[in-house]
Amino acid sequence: MTNITKLKNTVKKIFLKKGLNLNHSKKCADAIINAELVGAHSHGLSRLKMYCNRIDRKLINPKPKIKIKKISNSISFIDADNSIGFVAADIAIKKAIQNSKKTGIGLVAVKKSGHYGLSGFYAEKAVKKNLISLIFTNAPPAVAPHGALKSLFGTNPICFGSPTGSKIPFILDSSITMINRGKIRVAARKKQKIPEGVALDKFGNPTTNAIKALEGVQLPIAGFRGSGLAWMVDILSGVLTGANNAGKVKDPFDDFSGPQNVGHLFITLKSNLFVKNFMKEIKNNIKIIKKLPKIKGVKEILYPGENKFYRYKRNVKKNILLDQKTKNDIKNLLDH
Amino acid sequence: MTNITKLKNTVKKIFLKKGLNLNHSKKCADAIINAELVGAHSHGLSRLKMYCNRIDRKLINPKPKIKIKKISNSISFIDADNSIGFVAADIAIKKAIQNSKKTGIGLVAVKKSGHYGLSGFYAEKAVKKNLISLIFTNAPPAVAPHGALKSLFGTNPICFGSPTGSKIPFILDSSITMINRGKIRVAARKKQKIPEGVALDKFGNPTTNAIKALEGVQLPIAGFRGSGLAWMVDILSGVLTGANNAGKVKDPFDDFSGPQNVGHLFITLKSNLFVKNFMKEIKNNIKIIKKLPKIKGVKEILYPGENKFYRYKRNVKKNILLDQKTKNDIKNLLDH
Repeated sequence: MTNITKLKNTVKKIFLKKGLNLNHSKKCADAIINAELVGAHSHGLSRLKMYCNRIDRKLINPKPKIKIKKISNSISFIDADNSIGFVAADIAIKKAIQNSKKTGIGLVAVKKSGHYGLSGFYAEKAVKKNLISLIFTNAPPAVAPHGALKSLFGTNPICFGSPTGSKIPFILDSSITMINRGKIRVAARKKQKIPEGVALDKFGNPTTNAIKALEGVQLPIAGFRGSGLAWMVDILSGVLTGANNAGKVKDPFDDFSGPQNVGHLFITLKSNLFVKNFMKEIKNNIKIIKKLPKIKGVKEILYPGENKFYRYKRNVKKNILLDQKTKNDIKNLLDH
Repeated sequence: MTNITKLKNTVKKIFLKKGLNLNHSKKCADAIINAELVGAHSHGLSRLKMYCNRIDRKLINPKPKIKIKKISNSISFIDADNSIGFVAADIAIKKAIQNSKKTGIGLVAVKKSGHYGLSGFYAEKAVKKNLISLIFTNAPPAVAPHGALKSLFGTNPICFGSPTGSKIPFILDSSITMINRGKIRVAARKKQKIPEGVALDKFGNPTTNAIKALEGVQLPIAGFRGSGLAWMVDILSGVLTGANNAGKVKDPFDDFSGPQNVGHLFITLKSNLFVKNFMKEIKNNIKIIKKLPKIKGVKEILYPGENKFYRYKRNVKKNILLDQKTKNDIKNLLDH
């Protein structure tokens, strides 16, 4: 037997101790352990202490009074009352699914939320109901707008999910930076180098030092285009929703001046809105693309989400390996 | 007086001659001349002969019976009956605007359409009604999926428009290739080189020769991420709508085996759905970002759409300059 169930229970126990109710604690544990299982360690247990820290400092509300305002049968607006992001996002995607089941399209905006882990985790919930989804969230400053010398945009991921007619969903969950900030954070902790061309230090010089990169600026994909996409995500998830934006989302690790007030936007669509047999169509689309001639060394053309799915399948049979720091974090959180 | 009005009338006259009605001819002329004025020559008069060619070959239907199916008060589905793309897109964005005025959100899918010029042209129409828009369209093969040796995805632009509280709209209209295919086409015609790192020749080698690049493969932005975004756009505008997808959209310039059957997806949202004063919020967002310290040599941080707006303002006071080939095209189209 693996340590997965045990770890999930441990995480649940920690959040219960911090004052979250059983349902909310379970949601947090599910999302965090899922991140570990898909190999996104930067969005998993390495953040546990941070979340608890913010609860202790009353920056995450363990007992939020989440308000869901109905704008129309399709549209809802959630004030998450500074809940932990996992809880707000779980309620939001469920509401979006509900709305789109009723009307074909669901739109749910969230303000006063926090870091919710992986967008793809929520896109998968929509895919399971045969829905297409677009998910946007903003994040603390990490990327300089094109032409600027200072970080302002978050890694602001664009997430798209689609059913595929197979058990492996199409999940594109792409931050607009060259690599995830979480990966730089993990590299910094492990004193590893980061690749060239992904970040600048605080003086604007290229660096492969993870710690200097965290002090400096992450580079967006494709210059002006990536910067524009990050700005789009800031408008959709921050400005439109009334959440923090323009660099005001607080870094959860080291800014304790207030709640993060992250914003999210969830759009879900019935996949068979316009065609009779969407599953047949998308299966065919994928089949054609997979049959293309490949670059030397490439065994198979994968669609976004496949790699993650296979990693999950492999990892779910094994123990989750914890580094010493995470072990200490968990021990301390259980003890105190 | 400039030649702009005269050129617009000439284009209108050419489409009238080709059998389009006055309204449709006017829409085509508006979109084509607008592309010239914003400096997107690759989407302007350089395509006039191509459109007419396809009408002559009965691949574009000059007298389409466009069917608009109401799915709900928010959602519509358009079968464009192989109309010229400008006409289909104009009807679609107007329908999306109408739907979102009624319900807060508009979703319009289009199949059996063609190349419609610049997505940003339609996003601007939504911005004028204080709407946020997301617009997706697929396009003929130009970009190889990650790991593949053959082009399949189009340049599949992601377009986002937002009001800004000023007269200059936020219009991000970004193809997922390093540069627009149209720009490579113009470079090929003018026998100019293209930048390094934007395309491979048909053997998979990097090239700066525009003609070889057209025969080869364009590179997506950010490798796997750009490829994933292109795939997303193909699903949203091609698979979801029942239009051609997976590389089946025909190249309008040299594939005469059938109509293009391009698909589009238009999403429009009321900008004040969730916040009382969106214009104040977005103005503030832009103000903060513009005030950031700048990289040496950068005078001002511009948001997407600003450059285009300023180009338009400058160009509208001048003659549109035509190269000899375009002059000949126009003369031939008027004569025959």
